[in-house]
Amino acid sequence: MYVTSVNVYVKKDHVEDFIEATRANHEGSVKEPGNMRFDVLQGIADPAKFLLYEAYESEEAAKAHKETPHYKLWKETVEPWMDKPREGTPHRVICPVERSRW
Amino acid sequence: MYVTSVNVYVKKDHVEDFIEATRANHEGSVKEPGNMRFDVLQGIADPAKFLLYEAYESEEAAKAHKETPHYKLWKETVEPWMDKPREGTPHRVICPVERSRW
Repeated sequence: MYVTSVNVYVKKDHVEDFIEATRANHEGSVKEPGNMRFDVLQGIADPAKFLLYEAYESEEAAKAHKETPHYKLWKETVEPWMDKPREGTPHRVICPVERSRW
Repeated sequence: MYVTSVNVYVKKDHVEDFIEATRANHEGSVKEPGNMRFDVLQGIADPAKFLLYEAYESEEAAKAHKETPHYKLWKETVEPWMDKPREGTPHRVICPVERSRW
């Protein structure tokens, strides 16, 4: 299993736009065959800071996500709303190891 | 729903110790009544950097976690292995909203 966490910093006046575009990306992403989670979270202390938690069954499945129409549309749409570049960090999973718990 | 992401920086010679102690914390945490996920992830680029992804059904349930014996034992055990202070960030959940998808 392979999880990418992405820290996203959005311009304050585009927070609602970002949420709408990212909901659409979420709905497309969770339908991908190798996707296990695609959680979208908003900071409580800083509502313009978001965390995307993208779990895939393999690195290949995570890479395939970046070729999907919903990802490409999202990337292009949100690009002008970024306050600074996104920070994506890939991880391996320690727990839980059972696929049924994803 | 309430998700805390915690970035943890571990001293290189205690990475395996940290994994063992954090597996025990994971097993205790997922049995808490308000817990929805307690994922433990290891950085691929930097295996001494970890991400804990702690999802609770409410802020109260997240606070109750810090009063559990498994959390207190974990905190005390891993404290000397930290390379720098942990960074915990609380979030509200944008997606998925259905409890069944947690």
